[in-house]
Amino acid sequence: MFSSKIANEKSVHTMLNPKSIAVIGASENAKSIGSVVFKNLLHSKFEGSIYAVNPKYSAILDQPCYSSLQDIHEEIDIAVLATPAETIPDLIDQCCLKNIQSVMILSSGFNESGEEGQQLYKDIKSLCVDKQIRIIGPNCIGIINPWIDLNLGFYSKQALPGNLAFISQSGALNASILDWAVDQNVGFSSFVSVGSMMDVNFSDLLEYYENDDKTDCILMYIENIEQGKRFIEVASRVCDKKPIIALKAGRSRQGARVAASHTGALAGNDKIYDAAFEKAGILRVDSVAELFHVAKAFSIQPLPRGKRLAIVSNAGGPAVLATDMLISKGGELATLTDATISILKENLPSHAAKVNPIDVMDDASAETFSHTVIQCSKDKNVDAVIAIFTTQGLTNPADAAQMLIDSYTETDKPILTCWMGEGDVAKARDLLEKAGFPNFRYPENAVSVFQKMIEYKEAHTFEEKEEEEVQTYDVELAQTIIQYAGVQDRERLTEMEAKRILDCYHISSPESHIATSVEEAKYYAVQIGFPVVMKVLSPDIGHKIDVGGVILNINDYKEAEYAFGEIFSHVTSEAPDAEIMGVLVEKMVHKKYELLIGAVRDKAFGPAIMFGMGGSLVELWNDTHMAMAPLTRDDACHLIKMTKAHTLISGFRGMPAINKEKLIDVIVNFSHLINDLQNIVEVDINPFAMDEKGGLALDAHMLIK
Amino acid sequence: MFSSKIANEKSVHTMLNPKSIAVIGASENAKSIGSVVFKNLLHSKFEGSIYAVNPKYSAILDQPCYSSLQDIHEEIDIAVLATPAETIPDLIDQCCLKNIQSVMILSSGFNESGEEGQQLYKDIKSLCVDKQIRIIGPNCIGIINPWIDLNLGFYSKQALPGNLAFISQSGALNASILDWAVDQNVGFSSFVSVGSMMDVNFSDLLEYYENDDKTDCILMYIENIEQGKRFIEVASRVCDKKPIIALKAGRSRQGARVAASHTGALAGNDKIYDAAFEKAGILRVDSVAELFHVAKAFSIQPLPRGKRLAIVSNAGGPAVLATDMLISKGGELATLTDATISILKENLPSHAAKVNPIDVMDDASAETFSHTVIQCSKDKNVDAVIAIFTTQGLTNPADAAQMLIDSYTETDKPILTCWMGEGDVAKARDLLEKAGFPNFRYPENAVSVFQKMIEYKEAHTFEEKEEEEVQTYDVELAQTIIQYAGVQDRERLTEMEAKRILDCYHISSPESHIATSVEEAKYYAVQIGFPVVMKVLSPDIGHKIDVGGVILNINDYKEAEYAFGEIFSHVTSEAPDAEIMGVLVEKMVHKKYELLIGAVRDKAFGPAIMFGMGGSLVELWNDTHMAMAPLTRDDACHLIKMTKAHTLISGFRGMPAINKEKLIDVIVNFSHLINDLQNIVEVDINPFAMDEKGGLALDAHMLIK
Repeated sequence: MFSSKIANEKSVHTMLNPKSIAVIGASENAKSIGSVVFKNLLHSKFEGSIYAVNPKYSAILDQPCYSSLQDIHEEIDIAVLATPAETIPDLIDQCCLKNIQSVMILSSGFNESGEEGQQLYKDIKSLCVDKQIRIIGPNCIGIINPWIDLNLGFYSKQALPGNLAFISQSGALNASILDWAVDQNVGFSSFVSVGSMMDVNFSDLLEYYENDDKTDCILMYIENIEQGKRFIEVASRVCDKKPIIALKAGRSRQGARVAASHTGALAGNDKIYDAAFEKAGILRVDSVAELFHVAKAFSIQPLPRGKRLAIVSNAGGPAVLATDMLISKGGELATLTDATISILKENLPSHAAKVNPIDVMDDASAETFSHTVIQCSKDKNVDAVIAIFTTQGLTNPADAAQMLIDSYTETDKPILTCWMGEGDVAKARDLLEKAGFPNFRYPENAVSVFQKMIEYKEAHTFEEKEEEEVQTYDVELAQTIIQYAGVQDRERLTEMEAKRILDCYHISSPESHIATSVEEAKYYAVQIGFPVVMKVLSPDIGHKIDVGGVILNINDYKEAEYAFGEIFSHVTSEAPDAEIMGVLVEKMVHKKYELLIGAVRDKAFGPAIMFGMGGSLVELWNDTHMAMAPLTRDDACHLIKMTKAHTLISGFRGMPAINKEKLIDVIVNFSHLINDLQNIVEVDINPFAMDEKGGLALDAHMLIK
Repeated sequence: MFSSKIANEKSVHTMLNPKSIAVIGASENAKSIGSVVFKNLLHSKFEGSIYAVNPKYSAILDQPCYSSLQDIHEEIDIAVLATPAETIPDLIDQCCLKNIQSVMILSSGFNESGEEGQQLYKDIKSLCVDKQIRIIGPNCIGIINPWIDLNLGFYSKQALPGNLAFISQSGALNASILDWAVDQNVGFSSFVSVGSMMDVNFSDLLEYYENDDKTDCILMYIENIEQGKRFIEVASRVCDKKPIIALKAGRSRQGARVAASHTGALAGNDKIYDAAFEKAGILRVDSVAELFHVAKAFSIQPLPRGKRLAIVSNAGGPAVLATDMLISKGGELATLTDATISILKENLPSHAAKVNPIDVMDDASAETFSHTVIQCSKDKNVDAVIAIFTTQGLTNPADAAQMLIDSYTETDKPILTCWMGEGDVAKARDLLEKAGFPNFRYPENAVSVFQKMIEYKEAHTFEEKEEEEVQTYDVELAQTIIQYAGVQDRERLTEMEAKRILDCYHISSPESHIATSVEEAKYYAVQIGFPVVMKVLSPDIGHKIDVGGVILNINDYKEAEYAFGEIFSHVTSEAPDAEIMGVLVEKMVHKKYELLIGAVRDKAFGPAIMFGMGGSLVELWNDTHMAMAPLTRDDACHLIKMTKAHTLISGFRGMPAINKEKLIDVIVNFSHLINDLQNIVEVDINPFAMDEKGGLALDAHMLIK
């Protein structure tokens, strides 16, 4: 809502760092929100001014209570509204009079409460735009800034100061995360419940955190994003400076899209979010536990330089379990140098395992355990260490923890710890966490978090990019074709039209002609050269095969005559209402690999490209990945690599590999197509048939608006 | 080692319930194992007799110490040996003299300690067989039986009494699990560290727990199983009475198998364990956390009758996250009856979500929350409820917990709980866990556990079985063919031989003949009818295509002549040392679906069948599942259903479905083949080509020993 980045940063700064606060609706009724908010402020160490406003009281909790904002003579940085929804517009007017520029609306009863509430929401929103007041909420539970002892909302406790920012669309999750964090010594720069995001939204906050020195890592809980393009733009910029980790709810809420094409069927809303996060460089996690675990590691440990992990344990079993998890996630055990192995041999008993995973044995002392961890960490073949300590032996867990903490100065690589158990290791955990070692209850969790660190690291490691050649496309012709279909009020282009548009973007198809009579069909078949394929041409038919509208492998003149008749008779009986524009006579092409290249245009995020294994089994294998358009060559290369199709076309089991550069050309060109032609809402090339010589679009669907 | 089931149960019972114990190696040296063990016993409430044995002392911790076993005049149920490995044989002799029938060896220094240790291990093992002494260990950390206050070993604490048995090959894991369990009020019937399983092994213990009234559920941590067939047999029997949940380490330790066939390449050791566990009915979990979570639920909640889950929460976000996890794991949200929805409407505010997942809103009272959970639980469309409580509102978490506990009498369906947070919900968690509600930190964990309960339930729900028709097979001919190859010292049968063996088990192949000259080749091609395929026949060639030994689509007399020559020239140049027995001329068959049916013979578990998508991309998709042979029709049906191939052949996207009964016939027959013919170590039919009319083995590999 705020066009100026600087103005936005400034206003968010004021919200998170207010010097004076008015609580409108403060109350003595312990069950009211206003009472809780005022009490939280009052009982905190917050040093700014706090004003209670409520005409019903003259004093609350022995503090003066003002009957209206106008009675307060000092300046107010933020007004907190904890009153029923219908009172809000009036109160905002009062805030204006008082020249208050930030308002937090805790109240609910808007968008979730029927038409009346929705109207109220709209009214308030336009009021605030008019008056240039910034709103956080409604339906939020507040802001915490532990660095200034601010608990502005109804959180039951204060967070520890730290370097994590947390932005969340679920107040409930905030409360629980806060409780866990306090228990595990995890600190925050600030903690924001954004509620319905009438005004201040994810992008506004990210823009603020981008330059906030206190914030090293940003956590987000997201339910939906509306201005997707701005979000990607801001998040990309932020991700260049500090990690963003997001938990997105609603994976299961998809399938609303009508399946007009393979791409449409496979491109659930959630895959778009995946692509958007990938584009921005946001690390996505899959569960609350993972968000929390990953946050612990990112907030206090350096990122590993590479993926080679050493696992050190004083027990065999947990080390194997950790290794299992590592390998199942595609991770890599480090190979220790001979020098390290020699050092380990000197220090470990003969029957200890000195190859990674290293088992120092249950009778290892605190010194031996910690020494082994540090030696592995110093090994040049090792990028990170997971240290797993179990309590079976006689070594005191807290001693082992302290010894490791004391020795950590010798290395600058990440060490994740897992002191297994509960009460027996409580003291050790506390020591480790306070000293900056994320400690995990189970070895598998430590490994999962390490893999997330690697995922983040790899997504943010870029090679020097070559200047990319700029292609020119025949945008004008493509748009003319679309306009022509638009004039006819069609939502679907014919296959021929779709392929002509692909031509405009240098994506070839086999030679083909439209035949409207059997004579023409035969003529074109001979001209093209047998074998040919014939396909019904109709803007009304999506799945041509289903209505008998496709005949393959037509080998001669006779078969061509027969096929033309067959297609007409099938289609007129199976789809009697469909307009038949003719029959497409096309060169029959055999190429080894059938790929899918598609795109959908998302309302919030814009066009997203899909790539993967194509053919008729595409929904069965579901081997596709998506990326936001437009794509650079690097993006296209990454998109290909995210699929099993990549393994196949790279020369699987001795089969010839395709020319990947040519495939990248096609995908990049295709991404320009969907980016340029704003009227196309869905495209599907399936199959895009390829072999070592090149590729051709054998079929294409395009939907327009 | 014990042939008699009754004798085994009796001796294990004595080990877990001893009345008198001798600790050999008891000591005053606080750092020695013997000292810890003796102290643990002494400081416990164990009411049996405890004797310290050590010639070095006359008293330990103010208790008399005997210089040898012979000095003790009472009977001893179990002797604990906590002395160096090399002293063990002598001590066992002394145990014999004293007529002690059970010995626990805590010592290490055997199999893991080079040749000397291994010899010692063997010596002790045969000594015990001779003397009919039962051994637990060596290299174990002991036994806990909380019902008699027994802590026999070096566990740092006693377990709570309960109904879970835990058997583990990792002492370290035992110690950690025990610590967690005490923290979370999880109780045990007993807790056994089996160590190297010189004698008492998993099967022996399972056999005991089968009839142990105190045990309702058995947990196992497994690193390797040696006598696989007995294990499956015993575990199957036990699983009919009580659940077994297993964590198997070493998923990543596979790939040792040499890839002589597709099946061989895909059948890692871990897939065999999967198949063995499935055969026995054991529920496999993937991590320590999951073992622990699942155990909590299985020990105190009834199993759901079906898979329809209701999710009730006082916050939208966590409910959506739980739903995401449920759907991603293939679970099912219950559809509430209108009656339940009406009741909810009466009790919940207008803007609360009354369809599953149910959001009672943050201001719901303890009564409203608990009432909603119970109403959902009572709904006839609901099989289980997950109740997620967050601390954002004003409702006290402990009150909500207590209210739910008090109301639970109204329903008999499982309720899993997730009071989110840490310190704020500590009291509520304690209440819930003590009252028999497994409580999880994160909503996703509760859902995962619920899905495991369903997995277990479904694996143990059998329909009435029809009497299966007994097939007769030409075992004699099959064995003659194998013997013939054996006489020739071959490890690989030719394709023709393999197909003849398949014939003996009613698995058909296309018509084929061996041609040794071009004239014969042409003659057979004509006789079979074009098109035909020709394949080199050689016992030395595994991958015929790789040496140019296969030509498809031979359409006439001329092409046949040419193909025969080509194959000879390719093969003699590519594999000059291979013996060429001729060329197989075979009918060219086109069928829509290419499947894989294979088998490997595992050393521990015996033959296992593999089924899945076949063809040349089989390793790429890795869409296979395994099951232990022999298979009933139900087993075969289940095996098929575990693959994506099942979706494909069931009529995917309007394609014709195959006759599944015929496929089941083939798989059942194939399972008899590998079960009957003990000399076959690996078989691979790929592709087994099928369409709606039936199936044919187009290629077959068999390896023999």
